[in-house]
Amino acid sequence: MPMLVSELAPRIGAELLGHGADIEVTEVCALSEADAAGLSFVSSKKHLSALRATRAGAVILTPDLAAEAPCVCLLAVNPTLAFARAVELLHPRRRAPAGCHQSAVVAASAAIHPSASIGALCVIEEGVVIEAGAEIGPGCVIQRDSQIGADARLVAAVTICARSIIGKRVLLHPGAVIGREGFGFARDGERWVRIPQIGRVRLGDDVEVGSNSAVDRGAIGETVIGNGVKIDNLIQIGHNVEVGENTAMAACSGISGSTRIGKNCTIAGAVGMAGHLQIGDDVHFTGMAMVTRSFERSGTYSSGIPAMPSADWRRNVARFRHLDEMARRLLRLEQQVAELQDARRPVPDLSDGEKKSDKTA
Amino acid sequence: MPMLVSELAPRIGAELLGHGADIEVTEVCALSEADAAGLSFVSSKKHLSALRATRAGAVILTPDLAAEAPCVCLLAVNPTLAFARAVELLHPRRRAPAGCHQSAVVAASAAIHPSASIGALCVIEEGVVIEAGAEIGPGCVIQRDSQIGADARLVAAVTICARSIIGKRVLLHPGAVIGREGFGFARDGERWVRIPQIGRVRLGDDVEVGSNSAVDRGAIGETVIGNGVKIDNLIQIGHNVEVGENTAMAACSGISGSTRIGKNCTIAGAVGMAGHLQIGDDVHFTGMAMVTRSFERSGTYSSGIPAMPSADWRRNVARFRHLDEMARRLLRLEQQVAELQDARRPVPDLSDGEKKSDKTA
Amino acid sequence: MPMLVSELAPRIGAELLGHGADIEVTEVCALSEADAAGLSFVSSKKHLSALRATRAGAVILTPDLAAEAPCVCLLAVNPTLAFARAVELLHPRRRAPAGCHQSAVVAASAAIHPSASIGALCVIEEGVVIEAGAEIGPGCVIQRDSQIGADARLVAAVTICARSIIGKRVLLHPGAVIGREGFGFARDGERWVRIPQIGRVRLGDDVEVGSNSAVDRGAIGETVIGNGVKIDNLIQIGHNVEVGENTAMAACSGISGSTRIGKNCTIAGAVGMAGHLQIGDDVHFTGMAMVTRSFERSGTYSSGIPAMPSADWRRNVARFRHLDEMARRLLRLEQQVAELQDARRPVPDLSDGEKKSDKTA
Repeated sequence: MPMLVSELAPRIGAELLGHGADIEVTEVCALSEADAAGLSFVSSKKHLSALRATRAGAVILTPDLAAEAPCVCLLAVNPTLAFARAVELLHPRRRAPAGCHQSAVVAASAAIHPSASIGALCVIEEGVVIEAGAEIGPGCVIQRDSQIGADARLVAAVTICARSIIGKRVLLHPGAVIGREGFGFARDGERWVRIPQIGRVRLGDDVEVGSNSAVDRGAIGETVIGNGVKIDNLIQIGHNVEVGENTAMAACSGISGSTRIGKNCTIAGAVGMAGHLQIGDDVHFTGMAMVTRSFERSGTYSSGIPAMPSADWRRNVARFRHLDEMARRLLRLEQQVAELQDARRPVPDLSDGEKKSDKTA
Repeated sequence: MPMLVSELAPRIGAELLGHGADIEVTEVCALSEADAAGLSFVSSKKHLSALRATRAGAVILTPDLAAEAPCVCLLAVNPTLAFARAVELLHPRRRAPAGCHQSAVVAASAAIHPSASIGALCVIEEGVVIEAGAEIGPGCVIQRDSQIGADARLVAAVTICARSIIGKRVLLHPGAVIGREGFGFARDGERWVRIPQIGRVRLGDDVEVGSNSAVDRGAIGETVIGNGVKIDNLIQIGHNVEVGENTAMAACSGISGSTRIGKNCTIAGAVGMAGHLQIGDDVHFTGMAMVTRSFERSGTYSSGIPAMPSADWRRNVARFRHLDEMARRLLRLEQQVAELQDARRPVPDLSDGEKKSDKTA
Repeated sequence: MPMLVSELAPRIGAELLGHGADIEVTEVCALSEADAAGLSFVSSKKHLSALRATRAGAVILTPDLAAEAPCVCLLAVNPTLAFARAVELLHPRRRAPAGCHQSAVVAASAAIHPSASIGALCVIEEGVVIEAGAEIGPGCVIQRDSQIGADARLVAAVTICARSIIGKRVLLHPGAVIGREGFGFARDGERWVRIPQIGRVRLGDDVEVGSNSAVDRGAIGETVIGNGVKIDNLIQIGHNVEVGENTAMAACSGISGSTRIGKNCTIAGAVGMAGHLQIGDDVHFTGMAMVTRSFERSGTYSSGIPAMPSADWRRNVARFRHLDEMARRLLRLEQQVAELQDARRPVPDLSDGEKKSDKTA
């Protein structure tokens, strides 16, 4: 969708630099692959050489970089945010048509807003409520008594289990499973007896859940994902977990049951968290962190051993197995060296007999 | 479903404490959220203060805690187990109606017991056998010649690949994939050539497989999941793995091909196991354990570095890279200190000339 | 499908040893479970005792092991490769019938080759192109403007998001999601604003993607999976990742956005890679490796702490937290010991006054 940059700028929170610089752009591009109809952006000085070499017609950047740009400049305090808006304007998403596809199986008791779209081969069970503007892509299953908020979008092949509550503008990707009966068992001798999971999942507004991720329902009560939480692909959220607003979690992470995570946290990829932990606001975990205790204080936490050549790794790991012993040997050595030092000091003192006072100094 | 506690008690293996204490309960609740119609439970003394403050009408607990309860007591040796049964009685699951939904695509050669339920938009291929009482939820695909045991439940959107055998009362959650052709290749120069995987999967009775987990078929022969095994979400089970009865595996774990795991093991979240290992009975792995060798002896095994402040982590990890060198330096120091000690000892002996014998002692 | 070994041998690149040794085999088997109609193989000397004891009618092996075989021998330089071909011949896969199942929902603008097969309850959206011989199993969703190459096979329940390009002979397993809109956001104060992901995924020829794996589309531009790449189950591939030809990745791994992986790499299970890395050709990572920096040089790299008894682990981990401090203490000790050694050396020298020169030696 072609647009004049003069028209685009105010709509993305940017300012067009200079006069007579009005050009038309038709698409967004990477700096290195843009042509004269392309709009690009620079988010950091790391990309300065790409900026200087770009053939883009226009670029979004912070004012301090404008002098380096060989093209029309759109100035923004937060170029990434302005760019996100520009992508939306230049590449508007095609909305699915309102109404139920004839191949969908929709229970008579389901209440579907006329402006909502139900795709091909969806199953909408009894008691489901789907609000205005929601788009349910092909192949989704929404089990009984669930609610889908206004303008939510289920891309395709999403499964919503019974009684789940999905907020407004939620985005769920293919393969996501919301509201599964969680992993709760009682022991009966050696056998495991399932504890029926009678709670539910509540996803706040503007939540996103990625492909093949699973958010389990509460055992009793709710699993609560706060407004604005972003969950990437292949993530497991156990029963009764609570995640605070605007926390973001990268792919392959797993959060065990009943853990509470605060607001504005970032959880990098493949992080594992034990159950029943308390994680405060503004807590950040780096990739593959192993979280075995609560971290209530804001900060960045890490664990794991970064990869190294396997031969080095084998040698170091072999030593790790004896690290406690090494620490004990180190301590003993310190004592022995202290004794040796003590013993040495008196040597020149032998002649003056002040040994004791020296030792306690 | 309201029920008198006097009626409930014997059915959940509990004993009603005292006379005249018969009340009606309608639902199960957490201790802290219960009201007079609520039934709760206490599984450990950790919850003693919540017990004292509860407004629940009745609570299931061990006899030693009864004096602390401000409500009707149901005594049980294993309160969690009694509670699991109570949930089932008070919150009975709605069964799907028997018969095939008209939108399901069922092969003529499939043998489906009249008491089984086939949900909307399922695909049941040729040669499939579905036994009495099985519930196949909406959107499931059961590929040819698979067998689904009596009273098994496939919640929704489950895929069963060809020739899989699913035991009685098995519970499969949305997105589970059973019987995929596993990851087996031969090298042909730089190219990989798939080795067709002609085996199958056999899930025992009472097995559970969570959402978006995958159990691959045997390359030749079977992948065998024993009776009562519980597999959580997002778990990978490679070809020809065998898992013994009543072993439980938490989310995000992966078991590589041909590994055999014993009975009654517990495998916490995000554990990774190499292939061709032997894991004995009653072996327990803690979260994120990296299992690179066999553990045949019962016990608990762990690995990984728990998260710490990133600044500390960076310093410690930098040292880890040199741990082998540190160990060598430590050893050399020990030798040097021993020499110094030896050297020191003779010093007072200078006067009596017995240096040599001393050193070799 | 029964076949004479004399007929089989040339078709699998093997040579029948001796004359008059022609027998008929009907299936492939493990060495230990074969009978006279079974064909097995030996890939290494580790299986020598199983070879000697086998009841198989014929076995594929390298010439040096032929003397140990109690049955007909098929000699091959690469027995695993010959075996892969034999499985294909003896156990040919049933192809799905050409044409669209009547229950599939196919857009009028989709171009489906008459020899392709579209299974029950598939959704094929507008603008999709499906080439000759492709098999789309039941329950798949192919979103608009995607292309599926000749002879590709989507086993069942696969989701292909808009504008994806799938090469020839690609094999996609149930639950795989190709072309999801990736995890890209701009910050707007505390809120996350999605950056619309307008790129796509390109899977080369002969690529394989396992169950419940996800390959995200490019943010701008493409996520590119090279020819012959094999991706196991439960793997995450972030936006704009590039994977070189014939690289293989085992289950549960995750590759963050914009990382480039070379050709012929092997990535074992549960490996995690940070974003924007450069991984060279012929780079190999062992299981659970944590890849936080680029590895451009061919080699094998590892990380992680293998599991050990939990009591040992706890002690060692406690020390790890103080490893930096231990390293400093070790260094101080070395200095102290050096001083002690220096101090000792002069002792016998006291009589000859050459202290200073000694110290600098």
